[in-house]
Amino acid sequence: MTGPEHDTDTRPVLDLNADLGEGFGRWQLTDDEALLSVVTSANVACGFHAGDPSTMRRVCERAAERGVRIGAQVSYRDLAGFGRRAMDVPPDELADEITYQIGALRAFARAAGSDVTYVKPHGALYNRTVADAEQARAVVAGVLRAGGALPVLGLPGSRLHEAAAEAGLPVVAEAFADRAYTAAGTLVSRREPGAVVLDPEAVVARSVRLARSATVTALTGEDVAVRARSLCLHGDTPGAADLARRVRAALEDADVRVEAFA
Amino acid sequence: MTGPEHDTDTRPVLDLNADLGEGFGRWQLTDDEALLSVVTSANVACGFHAGDPSTMRRVCERAAERGVRIGAQVSYRDLAGFGRRAMDVPPDELADEITYQIGALRAFARAAGSDVTYVKPHGALYNRTVADAEQARAVVAGVLRAGGALPVLGLPGSRLHEAAAEAGLPVVAEAFADRAYTAAGTLVSRREPGAVVLDPEAVVARSVRLARSATVTALTGEDVAVRARSLCLHGDTPGAADLARRVRAALEDADVRVEAFA
Amino acid sequence: MTGPEHDTDTRPVLDLNADLGEGFGRWQLTDDEALLSVVTSANVACGFHAGDPSTMRRVCERAAERGVRIGAQVSYRDLAGFGRRAMDVPPDELADEITYQIGALRAFARAAGSDVTYVKPHGALYNRTVADAEQARAVVAGVLRAGGALPVLGLPGSRLHEAAAEAGLPVVAEAFADRAYTAAGTLVSRREPGAVVLDPEAVVARSVRLARSATVTALTGEDVAVRARSLCLHGDTPGAADLARRVRAALEDADVRVEAFA
Amino acid sequence: MTGPEHDTDTRPVLDLNADLGEGFGRWQLTDDEALLSVVTSANVACGFHAGDPSTMRRVCERAAERGVRIGAQVSYRDLAGFGRRAMDVPPDELADEITYQIGALRAFARAAGSDVTYVKPHGALYNRTVADAEQARAVVAGVLRAGGALPVLGLPGSRLHEAAAEAGLPVVAEAFADRAYTAAGTLVSRREPGAVVLDPEAVVARSVRLARSATVTALTGEDVAVRARSLCLHGDTPGAADLARRVRAALEDADVRVEAFA
Repeated sequence: MTGPEHDTDTRPVLDLNADLGEGFGRWQLTDDEALLSVVTSANVACGFHAGDPSTMRRVCERAAERGVRIGAQVSYRDLAGFGRRAMDVPPDELADEITYQIGALRAFARAAGSDVTYVKPHGALYNRTVADAEQARAVVAGVLRAGGALPVLGLPGSRLHEAAAEAGLPVVAEAFADRAYTAAGTLVSRREPGAVVLDPEAVVARSVRLARSATVTALTGEDVAVRARSLCLHGDTPGAADLARRVRAALEDADVRVEAFA
Repeated sequence: MTGPEHDTDTRPVLDLNADLGEGFGRWQLTDDEALLSVVTSANVACGFHAGDPSTMRRVCERAAERGVRIGAQVSYRDLAGFGRRAMDVPPDELADEITYQIGALRAFARAAGSDVTYVKPHGALYNRTVADAEQARAVVAGVLRAGGALPVLGLPGSRLHEAAAEAGLPVVAEAFADRAYTAAGTLVSRREPGAVVLDPEAVVARSVRLARSATVTALTGEDVAVRARSLCLHGDTPGAADLARRVRAALEDADVRVEAFA
Repeated sequence: MTGPEHDTDTRPVLDLNADLGEGFGRWQLTDDEALLSVVTSANVACGFHAGDPSTMRRVCERAAERGVRIGAQVSYRDLAGFGRRAMDVPPDELADEITYQIGALRAFARAAGSDVTYVKPHGALYNRTVADAEQARAVVAGVLRAGGALPVLGLPGSRLHEAAAEAGLPVVAEAFADRAYTAAGTLVSRREPGAVVLDPEAVVARSVRLARSATVTALTGEDVAVRARSLCLHGDTPGAADLARRVRAALEDADVRVEAFA
Repeated sequence: MTGPEHDTDTRPVLDLNADLGEGFGRWQLTDDEALLSVVTSANVACGFHAGDPSTMRRVCERAAERGVRIGAQVSYRDLAGFGRRAMDVPPDELADEITYQIGALRAFARAAGSDVTYVKPHGALYNRTVADAEQARAVVAGVLRAGGALPVLGLPGSRLHEAAAEAGLPVVAEAFADRAYTAAGTLVSRREPGAVVLDPEAVVARSVRLARSATVTALTGEDVAVRARSLCLHGDTPGAADLARRVRAALEDADVRVEAFA
């Protein structure tokens, strides 16, 4: 864990991010109000996998009121599949789809007196750009075109982070307290048994350990170093908001500064 | 016709606007390249009735290269109906849909070194906000929220222009050389016989007369005053680009300054 | 209430219908399993306001297993507005959209060993076709083209029922135990205070009275005759499934035959 | 080339298929009228990559009038990408999407006095199911569920044809006169130079040779056997309808029976 910026506070610091605004019209999914009282960064859906304009406006307004940072949770254009189906989108089209989503969200963020200050791909696009350099570069091209040199939140070592760094964009590493890691420090695929940590106590304990010692216990038992400036909390499952609150409380009890990245 | 701004040139001045970028993915409709060589203002579709992100980018880039002004051609969310089916969208939702579209287009306009500098509703939304004050105010609310105090291009006397003026937004009046007018100076409904002027010679002559004497001959034969700072050219019919070129040439021959509004 | 068909049972008979399958992809809304254990007719969303193909298949399979009748809950094409925004769809287009939806649902109903045996418009289309004869005729044209002479479930006295009857389609009248009626026997508009009956006890009592004496107490206090072969239960509110169960139990206790229409 | 069915006519027989109805709302693409005067089988878009309900109805009516066979041109759900972007759709969802599309088209085909009598995947789904056995089986599962044991039109040797044959569905092999073949009798990838035969004379000559001797000249010069009961004509390029007419005329001049498969 890198130390806090611009001060002499020596406590470890961690951002908490979650996906918000993932309803669409009549349908709701994430408990946006509850999560906004916990997280420091809100990944706001931009209309391609979820997120109608009115929901985007409301989440931006509430986030701005609470001082929660607003990020563009960009996705493949796939409402029916909730952005969870990888798509072979030609790079130029993909870049343009990213720019479009950031621009749309920015209008609401600025109207709320805030701004879009980072980008995080959603679902299948997130997973694909871990290893697919072409799509990773396309996402980065779309972010660059949107202007503002927005930081890209994602997995350390991903093609997405490599492409962002090459392009001169800041990268912010995130970790997952509810996902199993390999001994190499990568995520265990969701298709493997044990990939998701279901026990809330374990998730809380892993969060604190990640923040304090930048370490997780791999699925195979070894301790492995995992450096992250942000922790991703899931918001779309029953009990998600409650677990998020417990994680934050435990971090604060353990003398961790819960704070958005600069 | 109001005189030109900030100079002593006494020639009449007229903006030429047309709808551009009205394809979607594989489908094309408007001859964007040809029209961009004629018009001074491009009403760019924003994805709700037409206009995929890549088309939006390309049109913005070409418009910026040619010094053509970029406007957001906002619409109901209705790809299947091309935005031509009036919808009872609740005002709050409608306002948010407008903000979303402007924000998305702005990202491409700015990336091209230009900006979105006006708003014009499309199709059924244009027609509805002539008389529907509630939807007119919703459109204006969406424009206001998008920031920048964007001028609203539309019909003089429309509820839309009233609502914009009340909210402190600039309004820009447009006229149609290929539409018949009543003796009261309003458009003849498309359902009436003779509503559309089909003869290209007549369209050209009416354009010049509008520019030079702010007058049209009504369907019933009377001369009627029609003041407009912009003339709308249609781009989605065969021969549209050719007719647009002829209109522009005739205006210039008649010593009319073809120039975007300030 | 008309007596039961084809038998000498003299008990009153009532169908219970509810909207089912109103999720879309990742989003769920209606508690389909619970409602299928209560209703005798399932209005299945067909993909235009809700209802992805997999949900349609599952609801058809469960309905077929339980002997619940399957109806096509047809809608305007409006996922973002959940079909609640009236649209000026040209009659020919509207008819074709209805045929499309019925055809799609029929494939799943037949694959499940059942069939689509009636049609009920959803949301804004339901409300609009109460009074709009042109759209009512368009819906009927779409039903006719889909074949099978499907009965149309709706409000007695509506333009929709008139158009269906003129076209030779069977009509099935429905009533609402949770909606207030005027002294004329029509529904009180949702914009009026008191339009919705919120007290579960009252809803149960009104259901039984409707079934046994074809009467409701109007908002203004009078008794008014309301004849209906089907009672519409709402499924998209918290506690909806529980209330539906109580209504059915009370009807059976009151010696009402709960049975789909023929 | 297999001989004609049920008769003693010894002339070679060939079906001509083309994609039709590939517009959407305001947008048109294929010259449906012209192509329907040439082909014997119409692959009708079903709404997922193209094809609004009114277009589907019109194409079915015209095809029925002319005795042209109607097939369901099923696709990924991707209007923005025209179904040309491969998607990792889970098999169950994909199967349900196929059933939905066939059901919707069947309503229009039957209303026109005809029926859906075969299935052909479109674009990226066509290409993917050449090699992807899981998606091929999903498509076949969707076809089976739609009922009617519909033949599957596609590439001989494809996973799609294997899966269809395993499931007991008839398969119909098609060939392309405007695509280059390898010495192994497979299509040269569109990414390779020379993949598409652009010279109309060559396309016509290759069509006749395919029909008369089941042979094409590979890109590398060898003669290679290509057996096909149907020839795919492209309809979405300028001059497509004209080339299709020339191919049909040349086939008939060469004493080939142009006839739909049984």
